[in-house]
Amino acid sequence: MKFKSPPVNSLSLDFITELCISLEKLENNRECRGVIFTSAVPNIFSSGLDITEMCGKSLEHYAEFWRAVQEMWLRLYGSSMVTVAAVNGSSPAGGCLIALSCDYRIMVQNPKFIIGLNEAQLGIVAPFWFKDTFVNTVGHRVAERSLQLGSLHSASEAHKFGLVDELVPEEKLQEKAAAVMAQWLALPDHARQLTKSMMRKAVLDRLVAHREEDVQNFVNFISKESIQKSLRLYMEMLKKKKS
Amino acid sequence: MKFKSPPVNSLSLDFITELCISLEKLENNRECRGVIFTSAVPNIFSSGLDITEMCGKSLEHYAEFWRAVQEMWLRLYGSSMVTVAAVNGSSPAGGCLIALSCDYRIMVQNPKFIIGLNEAQLGIVAPFWFKDTFVNTVGHRVAERSLQLGSLHSASEAHKFGLVDELVPEEKLQEKAAAVMAQWLALPDHARQLTKSMMRKAVLDRLVAHREEDVQNFVNFISKESIQKSLRLYMEMLKKKKS
Amino acid sequence: MKFKSPPVNSLSLDFITELCISLEKLENNRECRGVIFTSAVPNIFSSGLDITEMCGKSLEHYAEFWRAVQEMWLRLYGSSMVTVAAVNGSSPAGGCLIALSCDYRIMVQNPKFIIGLNEAQLGIVAPFWFKDTFVNTVGHRVAERSLQLGSLHSASEAHKFGLVDELVPEEKLQEKAAAVMAQWLALPDHARQLTKSMMRKAVLDRLVAHREEDVQNFVNFISKESIQKSLRLYMEMLKKKKS
Repeated sequence: MKFKSPPVNSLSLDFITELCISLEKLENNRECRGVIFTSAVPNIFSSGLDITEMCGKSLEHYAEFWRAVQEMWLRLYGSSMVTVAAVNGSSPAGGCLIALSCDYRIMVQNPKFIIGLNEAQLGIVAPFWFKDTFVNTVGHRVAERSLQLGSLHSASEAHKFGLVDELVPEEKLQEKAAAVMAQWLALPDHARQLTKSMMRKAVLDRLVAHREEDVQNFVNFISKESIQKSLRLYMEMLKKKKS
Repeated sequence: MKFKSPPVNSLSLDFITELCISLEKLENNRECRGVIFTSAVPNIFSSGLDITEMCGKSLEHYAEFWRAVQEMWLRLYGSSMVTVAAVNGSSPAGGCLIALSCDYRIMVQNPKFIIGLNEAQLGIVAPFWFKDTFVNTVGHRVAERSLQLGSLHSASEAHKFGLVDELVPEEKLQEKAAAVMAQWLALPDHARQLTKSMMRKAVLDRLVAHREEDVQNFVNFISKESIQKSLRLYMEMLKKKKS
Repeated sequence: MKFKSPPVNSLSLDFITELCISLEKLENNRECRGVIFTSAVPNIFSSGLDITEMCGKSLEHYAEFWRAVQEMWLRLYGSSMVTVAAVNGSSPAGGCLIALSCDYRIMVQNPKFIIGLNEAQLGIVAPFWFKDTFVNTVGHRVAERSLQLGSLHSASEAHKFGLVDELVPEEKLQEKAAAVMAQWLALPDHARQLTKSMMRKAVLDRLVAHREEDVQNFVNFISKESIQKSLRLYMEMLKKKKS
C-alpha cells in the first residue's frame, strides 16, 4: 500500500477513512495475507495527523476525527495480516504510530529522515495508546524520555534502540520489505495470528474499553484556547518554512 | 540435576512427573539451597514437550499432561532455590522454557546449538505463561517478534538480546555454573527469596488464577483435527530426518 | 539542590523531612521549573536510608520514618518539575532511588563510584515501589538479577544497561547537567508534565493505594529480631571499616 497524498501524506480525515476502508477490505480478503506500507511521496513516509483537522473546527468534527484515528490504530495494531512498514522518508507523530503498529519496520538509512512521537514539541500530549504502542516497542525508559522531549530520532538512533528493526539503503528497501514479508508469511497463519493477538490484546482492549472517554479527553483538550493557539502558531511556522 | 532421557530429553509425562517430584524434594530439603540444570545427552539440553503426548491420545490424557507441564513451570519459576541453567545443547520450545524459568542462564558457545520458543513453526501457540516468562526475560518487542516467527536463535544471538546471560566454551561450563551458583548463594536466602518472589509473583499468580481454564484451552486446541494433522506431519518429518 | 549531610549524606528522618519541605516549596513556586540534585560531600551522592533510623527504635518511629521515605519518593517520582540527578559519588540503596526517580541521570565516570539497589546484601528487601521504579528504568530482567544479587554497579556498567543515562568526567558534570536541564526546559511545561504523569501514574498510584499496608509491612519486617541483628552486624562492620 503506497501512501500518496502530497505534499506530506498528512493524515486527514479523508485519508484515514480511506485507509480504514482499504484495511477492512484486505482483512476480509482471504487471498491477502500481508501488507507493506510505504510512501509514494519523496522524503516523507507520513507527516502524521493533519493539524488542520484539529484547529478551528467544531467539537463534533474533533470527535469524528478522533474516532477515525482510533479506528485506524485498532485496525493496524490488531490486524491479522502481516504488516511491514517500509519507511522511505520522515515519519513524525501519527506517521511514527503507523510504523509502530506494524509487525516489522524497515527504514531507509538517510541522515535527513527522522522518526518519533514529537507531540510534546507542539504542546500536545500523545494519547495513552500511542504511548502503550511505543512502550511495547522500545520499553518504558526510552519511551518516557523520548515522549517527554518529543524527540525526533535519526534513522540510526531509532535503529539503535529498536524503534525500527532494520536500516537499508534506499534502493534496497522494496527488495528487503518483500524478503521480510516472505519470511513472516512462511509461518502458518493461524498460529502467527493467535500469537500476535496474545501479544497485543491487552493494549488493544484498553482503548476499546475507554474509547468514548478518550474521544471526550481529546475534544476537551484540543478545543482549549491555549492549545488552539499553539497549533495556529505551529501551522504559521510551517507555512513560513514552506515559503 | 542432569537430564538423561535419550535421545533428546523430550519432556514426556513421565519425565515431567519425575522432575516435579525431584524439585519438591529438593525444595523441602533445607540443606539444598540451589540447583544447576544441565544435560547428560550430547548436543541437546531438552527438545521440549514430547509431541507423542499431544498426538492421538484421549482428552483426559491431554488434560493430565498439561497439568503436569503447568506444575513443572510453577515449581521452577517459583522455586525458592537458586536455579541455574547450564545449557549444553539445543533447547527449543519447552526446553527453552526450563532455561527461562531459572535465575541465570549460561549457554555453551557452539554455532550448532539453538534456543527459542518455536511453537509457531509447528502451527501451535505458546501459552500465555510461556509468553509472560519470555517477556520478563527479553522484553515485549523481542518476544513479540521471536514468538510470531517461532525463531530458534543461535547461542550468540540469544546472548545478544538477553535470552541467555552468558556464553562459555563447553569445557568451562560446569566451572562457570558453579561460580555463578556460589555468587548467588552468597546472598542471605531470606532476602533473595522475597526479592525473587516480588519479581515473579504477578506472572505466577496469573496462571494459578486461570489454571483450569488454561487446561481447557489447551485440550480444545490440541485436539482439533487441523492441529493433530500438523503434529502428525511434524513427527513424520522428524522420523524421516532421523533415518 | 546540593545534599550536604556529612559524612555520607545518609537519609535520616531529619534529612528526608527537610528534602520533602524543600521539594514542596519548589513545586509551589511557579518560577522554579527544574531541579538538579547533586552532592556537596566528596565521593558520595547519598549512602541511602540511615540505618540508625531502622535499628533499636520504637515501632512508632519505624512507621514515621517509613512514611517520610514514601513521601520523598512520591514527591520526587511524581514531581511536575524537570529533575536531573548529577551523581558525583557512590549512590547505593536509597541514594540510587533518588537518582532513579529523576527524569535524567548523569554520573561521573570514576571507577570508584558505584550505584545500585543493594538491599538484599543487607538481608533486607527493596519495597515494591523501589522495584517498580527500577523496572521502569532498566527493564524486568536486569532489575530481577540486580535486586536478587543486591548488586552495586560501576558507573560504566550502570550506563551500559541504562541505570544512568550519561557518563561525564567530574569537571564536566555541572556544565552537562545545566545543558540537559536547558534541553528539557525547552519543552512546553504543560505537555511535558502531562506526558510524565502518563508514564509514571500507574506506579505512583500503586503506592498511594497501598500506603498504610506498606508501612505495616515495613514495620513488621524491620522489627523482626533476625533483621535487627543483621542491621546491627552491618553497622558494626561499617564502624570497623571507618576506624
